[in-house]
Amino acid sequence: MGSSWGFDRMRRLTRVQVSFRSSRDQDRVRRAVTQRRKHQMSLPAPENAFVTPLLTDFYQISMCYAYFKAKMHEQPAVFELFFRKNPFKGAFTVLAGTDEVLRFVSNFKFTAEHIAYLRTVMPHAEDAFFDYLAELDCSKVKISTIAEGTVVFPKEPLIRVEGPLAVAQLLETPLLNLINYPSLIATNAARMRLAAGPTVKLLEFGLRRAQGPDGGMSGSKYAMVGGFDATSNVLAGMMFDIPIQGTHAHSFITSFTSLDDVDDGLTHGPVVIPDFKQQCVAMRERLGYRTNDSELAAFISYAISFPATFLALVDTYSTLDSGVKNYVAVAAVLASHGIKPLGIRLDSGDLAYLSIQARKQFREADEKLGLDLKLENSTIVASNDINESILHSLKEQKHDIDTFGIGTHLVTCQAQPALGCVYKLVQVRGMPRIKLSNEKDKMTIPGLKQLYRIHGRTGPILDLLTRADDPAPAVGESIMAMHPFQEEKRARVTPVKVEKLLLVRWDGRLVDGYTLPSVSDTREFVKQQLRVMREDHIRSQFPTPYKLSVTQTLFASIRKLWLESSPVAELC
Amino acid sequence: MGSSWGFDRMRRLTRVQVSFRSSRDQDRVRRAVTQRRKHQMSLPAPENAFVTPLLTDFYQISMCYAYFKAKMHEQPAVFELFFRKNPFKGAFTVLAGTDEVLRFVSNFKFTAEHIAYLRTVMPHAEDAFFDYLAELDCSKVKISTIAEGTVVFPKEPLIRVEGPLAVAQLLETPLLNLINYPSLIATNAARMRLAAGPTVKLLEFGLRRAQGPDGGMSGSKYAMVGGFDATSNVLAGMMFDIPIQGTHAHSFITSFTSLDDVDDGLTHGPVVIPDFKQQCVAMRERLGYRTNDSELAAFISYAISFPATFLALVDTYSTLDSGVKNYVAVAAVLASHGIKPLGIRLDSGDLAYLSIQARKQFREADEKLGLDLKLENSTIVASNDINESILHSLKEQKHDIDTFGIGTHLVTCQAQPALGCVYKLVQVRGMPRIKLSNEKDKMTIPGLKQLYRIHGRTGPILDLLTRADDPAPAVGESIMAMHPFQEEKRARVTPVKVEKLLLVRWDGRLVDGYTLPSVSDTREFVKQQLRVMREDHIRSQFPTPYKLSVTQTLFASIRKLWLESSPVAELC
Repeated sequence: MGSSWGFDRMRRLTRVQVSFRSSRDQDRVRRAVTQRRKHQMSLPAPENAFVTPLLTDFYQISMCYAYFKAKMHEQPAVFELFFRKNPFKGAFTVLAGTDEVLRFVSNFKFTAEHIAYLRTVMPHAEDAFFDYLAELDCSKVKISTIAEGTVVFPKEPLIRVEGPLAVAQLLETPLLNLINYPSLIATNAARMRLAAGPTVKLLEFGLRRAQGPDGGMSGSKYAMVGGFDATSNVLAGMMFDIPIQGTHAHSFITSFTSLDDVDDGLTHGPVVIPDFKQQCVAMRERLGYRTNDSELAAFISYAISFPATFLALVDTYSTLDSGVKNYVAVAAVLASHGIKPLGIRLDSGDLAYLSIQARKQFREADEKLGLDLKLENSTIVASNDINESILHSLKEQKHDIDTFGIGTHLVTCQAQPALGCVYKLVQVRGMPRIKLSNEKDKMTIPGLKQLYRIHGRTGPILDLLTRADDPAPAVGESIMAMHPFQEEKRARVTPVKVEKLLLVRWDGRLVDGYTLPSVSDTREFVKQQLRVMREDHIRSQFPTPYKLSVTQTLFASIRKLWLESSPVAELC
Repeated sequence: MGSSWGFDRMRRLTRVQVSFRSSRDQDRVRRAVTQRRKHQMSLPAPENAFVTPLLTDFYQISMCYAYFKAKMHEQPAVFELFFRKNPFKGAFTVLAGTDEVLRFVSNFKFTAEHIAYLRTVMPHAEDAFFDYLAELDCSKVKISTIAEGTVVFPKEPLIRVEGPLAVAQLLETPLLNLINYPSLIATNAARMRLAAGPTVKLLEFGLRRAQGPDGGMSGSKYAMVGGFDATSNVLAGMMFDIPIQGTHAHSFITSFTSLDDVDDGLTHGPVVIPDFKQQCVAMRERLGYRTNDSELAAFISYAISFPATFLALVDTYSTLDSGVKNYVAVAAVLASHGIKPLGIRLDSGDLAYLSIQARKQFREADEKLGLDLKLENSTIVASNDINESILHSLKEQKHDIDTFGIGTHLVTCQAQPALGCVYKLVQVRGMPRIKLSNEKDKMTIPGLKQLYRIHGRTGPILDLLTRADDPAPAVGESIMAMHPFQEEKRARVTPVKVEKLLLVRWDGRLVDGYTLPSVSDTREFVKQQLRVMREDHIRSQFPTPYKLSVTQTLFASIRKLWLESSPVAELC
């Protein structure tokens, strides 16, 4: 845990504000900005070294070859990335992963090794195809995304890719991989934050149970985006500059066998307590406790190493009969020397009951000792298989927990471990395309489109998809908002504010002036947005769906294409 | 898809057999073996670049510091890695990931950048601690594992780590991360293989929905281990030398707008069909089909690129009214020129019904054309949200599917997205340690132990945990096998075969003669083992638990330590 229990590191993440003092200063700033832009025009490689054009489904390469053979590979195409259903039976999703998408696109290049491998698996393909692949990059591609951290809804284009058919097709699998899990985790974390309330601290503890090393790394990063406060993952702390947290495990406790295993003295700055161990043992006596000696030894040893951040795991032998009491004994000695103890961690059993009983023991010790030690204010951390519904149920039981450590259910998204983003062709050679399906839910909304968020007086009312050449909705001007596939479902709305959601971020290179947001910026952005959403859209149980509407002109194009593309069934 | 539809690549994976011809040959072989051993003594880095000592929970570093401060860091300790419950309500688990564990251990080293970061998060720690960390490696550590791919059971030590307390503690989080997901995926894949039966082909399609890039990569690798036949993941194909597979997506179909978009001719080796397109259109006419033109165009184009492996995705517009019929038209032309068409892929709708109806259409076309084209033998591939229970239910519906493509449910293990492996201290300074808990299920089995698989005449009967100094069980000698915590549950057994399961793989360096198994070797090993397990242990519904027993001496030690460590509750 060390020094990072606080959230100082978080504050340091906020972008440095520059104030202009003199023209010389201004010049310096301008130079720095130019340099940053130059740097940003070619972004660093994706965080995970696997993220290369070869991290893809083989059919992307097969299709690419078929396009090449049919001389269609350079035809202009438009693809959209979207999902069809919010995760966790909810009515919202937090978009995340767009930063990695831009880093991937910026570094898109097959290596000689990739090409050599592809030759072995496509022995009949023409040489010219491999020459074409070797030269390929994203300099002819244009990518628009909704901003990282935006609250988004089903069927909305989260990312729009415009460019030559073959290369736009090749982006499908990596883009889906880079968006699906980050968005899922950010949404899961945001839901847990809503369930836990704004004041409780939330720590991400998922690394050990994550789906691979990257599941752990993305888990840590995107849990922060969704509203967590810190992670236990040290590498994530280093790479993403996010606060890290931790105390000790059961093995630390069980590694001590008796009080003989511990040193006597404790030093913390000017405070020197040569007989610290003896004082702890005496304090236990004074409080009338009979507890496990080896556990007390472990706590004393941990306090000697981390006097200012002493937090004890209390369930190794018996939470209420040994662990909490041993904590109280050590904490009381620390507090009596002016060193504030931090608290306990519960890792098994009935967490609401144990937290209430532990707090009661703290209070009783305060009263018994009468030294104004304020042990009552100790932090109670709870971990052990916590999920969103347990957070709700603990709240109903009026728990007395200050901090939750959440692992497995957070990072693996146990309630729904995959978000189903898809990537669909919506236009080719300027012609809108539709995908029908035996399952109505799998239909796509064709054509090059734009997406707007329409706000009323109190916040967002609906999102509006328009044809790219439709006029943008304007404040104060009434619009007819249609259901995409059902003509009878429509609403009239007069915007108080209009937000354009799909923004060009990449146009052969990163667009001028765009910089990737930091984790803490995005985290703040997510928070702000959830604050203005109507409560019934973001509630946990039976939320009201948020509307995605289309303009009348877009509705008409969808219907036309739908009828043209549907075969007339042959009944015999 | 190219040339890889077959499984030639799989065969190439089998280790090269060397036959000795002359002493000169022998010398050459001996030299090669020595070189390989040398190479293996320092294994290559883990597959994922994140896998470093810093990919860990912060409390491991805190504990390490507390051990260092208490001068306990060099004390001899024994840790065990195990899980408490089989996943997917089953009664078995396939162990996987031990290869990556050995690669991690072999390359364990904090970098200067790691140390610099740790200094910032532990500003009060002593300098000597960071010097100690900078020097740390696994040269004093001994690691025993059960063989990669072994069928294993709850509470068995899958990995045993012996070594200095601090470094053995530091291995916890990375080892858990490296074992949990691979074992989960391998088990999931093995269960799907059991559900699908031995003859159906199983393809892994999960990359796009996986939990991050690494979820995708491990998913592909360990699905093969569990019994899948190929993956769509190209990078996994290259890195792990496993067969890859793929055809085309809906976007390929929708990228065609009319028959004018397609070339006329097809060439395949000596076969040249200049009017291929016209022949396909005429064949559709002859068969009396009215289908979607742009879909037919896409199929023709794909056949031109991949004549020998023509497989068509048939559900873009209407599976039975357009897709299957368009496939039949193109396939009939190919077949009439002696090129065997491959088949269709169904990606939505009622897969059992559609597969039966599609086969019927193939048969009707064969009869109508009377050309002995054998379209009936086309492969039917089915994808779309398939999981284990859908495989069972499709079997009941007597589906006519030859190959399943399984993505989301396989790689994210939707039914249970995490395996709960834990890593517990079982001995320190030669003394056995126990972890009690409010939850009985969380108790550990203390002490340095060995694990044996006891076989009866027809296969494995039970696994037996012994104290390390107990005599090994012997063939023909009767043993009393006890439940670890319940004295009244015991059985007498006389082994027909005894298998020692925990084998030393690392003893400061990789042990002589051990080489990491290939994916295909492990895959074969998993298959063999599932073949000899009693059917009721591996069945999907309500399986019989497989017994893990302990010797009488081990039982006695557990009881002794349990009583010693339990506090006597204070009732007031």
